[in-house]
Amino acid sequence: MLDKALAYARAHRAEYLEDFFKHLSFPSVSAQPAHTADIRATAEWLQEHLQQIGLSARIMETGGHPVVYAEWLMAGADQPTILIYGHYDVQPPEPFELWQSEPFKAEIRDGYIYARGSNDNKGQHFAHIKAIQSYLAAIGSLPVNIKLLIEGEEEIGGPSLSAFVEEHQLLLDCDAIMVSDGALLTLTQPSLTYGLRGLTKMEVTVKSLAKDVHSGSYGGNVQNPAVALAQIIAKLKDEQGRVAIPGYYDDVRVMSAEERAALAQIPYGEREVLAETGASQLFGDPDYAVNERKGARPTLEINGMWSGYTGPGSKTIIPATAHCKITCRLVPHMSPQKIHAMVSDYIKQVTPPGCTVEVEQYSEGAPGVLVDRDSPYVAAASRAAEATYGNPPIFEIEGGSIPVVGDFQRVLKKPVILLGFGLNDDNVHSPNERYAVECWDKAIEAGLRFLAECAA
Amino acid sequence: MLDKALAYARAHRAEYLEDFFKHLSFPSVSAQPAHTADIRATAEWLQEHLQQIGLSARIMETGGHPVVYAEWLMAGADQPTILIYGHYDVQPPEPFELWQSEPFKAEIRDGYIYARGSNDNKGQHFAHIKAIQSYLAAIGSLPVNIKLLIEGEEEIGGPSLSAFVEEHQLLLDCDAIMVSDGALLTLTQPSLTYGLRGLTKMEVTVKSLAKDVHSGSYGGNVQNPAVALAQIIAKLKDEQGRVAIPGYYDDVRVMSAEERAALAQIPYGEREVLAETGASQLFGDPDYAVNERKGARPTLEINGMWSGYTGPGSKTIIPATAHCKITCRLVPHMSPQKIHAMVSDYIKQVTPPGCTVEVEQYSEGAPGVLVDRDSPYVAAASRAAEATYGNPPIFEIEGGSIPVVGDFQRVLKKPVILLGFGLNDDNVHSPNERYAVECWDKAIEAGLRFLAECAA
Repeated sequence: MLDKALAYARAHRAEYLEDFFKHLSFPSVSAQPAHTADIRATAEWLQEHLQQIGLSARIMETGGHPVVYAEWLMAGADQPTILIYGHYDVQPPEPFELWQSEPFKAEIRDGYIYARGSNDNKGQHFAHIKAIQSYLAAIGSLPVNIKLLIEGEEEIGGPSLSAFVEEHQLLLDCDAIMVSDGALLTLTQPSLTYGLRGLTKMEVTVKSLAKDVHSGSYGGNVQNPAVALAQIIAKLKDEQGRVAIPGYYDDVRVMSAEERAALAQIPYGEREVLAETGASQLFGDPDYAVNERKGARPTLEINGMWSGYTGPGSKTIIPATAHCKITCRLVPHMSPQKIHAMVSDYIKQVTPPGCTVEVEQYSEGAPGVLVDRDSPYVAAASRAAEATYGNPPIFEIEGGSIPVVGDFQRVLKKPVILLGFGLNDDNVHSPNERYAVECWDKAIEAGLRFLAECAA
Repeated sequence: MLDKALAYARAHRAEYLEDFFKHLSFPSVSAQPAHTADIRATAEWLQEHLQQIGLSARIMETGGHPVVYAEWLMAGADQPTILIYGHYDVQPPEPFELWQSEPFKAEIRDGYIYARGSNDNKGQHFAHIKAIQSYLAAIGSLPVNIKLLIEGEEEIGGPSLSAFVEEHQLLLDCDAIMVSDGALLTLTQPSLTYGLRGLTKMEVTVKSLAKDVHSGSYGGNVQNPAVALAQIIAKLKDEQGRVAIPGYYDDVRVMSAEERAALAQIPYGEREVLAETGASQLFGDPDYAVNERKGARPTLEINGMWSGYTGPGSKTIIPATAHCKITCRLVPHMSPQKIHAMVSDYIKQVTPPGCTVEVEQYSEGAPGVLVDRDSPYVAAASRAAEATYGNPPIFEIEGGSIPVVGDFQRVLKKPVILLGFGLNDDNVHSPNERYAVECWDKAIEAGLRFLAECAA
């Protein structure tokens, strides 16, 4: 049965790629209100597509962007039910000028599919969908019961999904949750993630004037909000990149010596970070190694900053306002609300005179999570990955965040499997996001094998 | 003769306003390459207009935007020659959304003419031109010889005009230079400026990555250039707004006790700065008073700052680069080159690890200047101002910069008169720049009286 499904997938490779490119053509940018209609169009297309391949699919409303839900529950009561999670929304493509091809017109170059969302996350959840399609088309049934939950707010911190999971606890009831929203170490070395960072996001606005004013006429007599904001930001981190807010690290989970030793064995480190980012040197807390700083330590990063005149040449003004966007990545057992309040209070406390400051939180945030490494479904995923990529997966912790994972654990109380299908140099969240064609092909295979391995 | 010219100006008020509005309709933004053709169109229109009103006018090329030169030298060798300076270029109008009417479509509301350049400087030099026109039209001659120099690079620090003045020393030879590019204290209290700040302008670029990267995957392991730039900026100024760069104040001219006492008498202070800027409180070096900080002390201001994602919502990246624009306002006897090198070296010295920094100077900059308060032409301007506004002018120092004034002093070696025609709350360099209709009318009168008072 697995072989027939695998053969079907290989035989329909061109058609699957075409469907994938269609999915990539929707500019489903959740952060930008201008794309609200595109978000809905993506959800509608996905719902129809899932219906066409043989699932029962529907669009479900949330307080924000809609969720696409689908199911196939005819494997029988003796078979487990697997909930597969993904997100159809993508990061903003800006800055456009750095893209070598259009972000929403997928293009294959040198073995890579280039498009926003090609890896994160359309390329990963859609591979599971194509695995399901292969089974249904080749055999007419699936080895396990399947529920699919594809949301549209992952890239904005999932403000609505937490409530959605609580509200639809029965609908989402399952035996395990498969989340593919990460990376392999290499195409021959899969990894299973056992920790994800959480996050809390905010925007800071410093204001000192009613309008931009002449820097000659008023310079020396009024506060410059860009300088004030810089002074605030400068006090958020120390000279070695540690967060300088008192108490920030108080609740951080302490790693055991065994865990640190295991993380040190992962073939990922300085060389990979430098190659993937183009940094000339690493920069971070000297008390921790690269893989520890990546996933087991919290961060505070400025994602954007702006004030005054940013066009060509000079404009001799003192700006009226200055702004920045901050993301704090959190690890167990930090509380997003506590950290937000701590950062916000600290910013107010260190704001220099002559200006006002406001700190707006974007959403409730999400805590960092650890997942159970010993469930039989993790073992099933491990066997599927080994059969597909040639080696058993390594256990690692990821720096990114998938806010809903914490909700799944808390509400559904079932094991979550974090098996990524991309590569670390896929320019996720950057211009020229890409996804190796081989990643795409193997992801479908891994998805197929995972379904087979889960069967009782 | 003066009375006839004054009467002519009053009788042709509507026509003069129409010409003025035409001048304001050109988007002569010198900082933005997209407006290069508009800059030339402005110069061509002005040259034609000057020719039409009876001057001999021509466009003269520089290394950058052209100069409009005009003359009328038939008053006889026994009459002095007055060089009138102005600039036809304007500041960028951004942010557009804060303008209540279009920046290049002048509109009168509540007694004010709203347009970019209405005060700075079209409204001021064009009033002199209309004064000249009134004499020539009413009487057929001028009481003194006149040269006009209207440049197009004042708002970008005058990179070409310094060389132009040196090259055309003979052409520009005169007995005094009249510069109207400032403000009255009130419509009944004129002021003569005896000091102007100079400036040096630069752009700082901090770079740590080849591209924006995922803040989860790389946060904790690479330098964030927005944080690094903030830490640099934070070290440029202390908590009371003083420049923190060692040696910055070393060459600053020391005011005498008499001068400080005289400045303290000027009816301009905290109340006016708060009303004009909308600041909730003053902020500046506590050792100096408002009028001293405004013109007799140097500044370092951030005019603009940008990094990463600045659109709506969040984008969880670490930016590749961060940028800011800096203007240092200088007072006698600071050297722009020395200060540029000092700031640039200091920035490099305080740049944190994990990133590179570049400091680009926009132009050569200009030194601060003091002008002779005792020349007979200053006395002529003083009488003209008193007759027009009802009170003798107060002597004050200005915070703004007119780079060419230093060149006039150095090359032409003749007294410069700094008599402003605008008001301090005209939103110069800000959205909704304006110029009171009464300012415009009185500026033409003051210009007429000045010509009469200069006659031997």
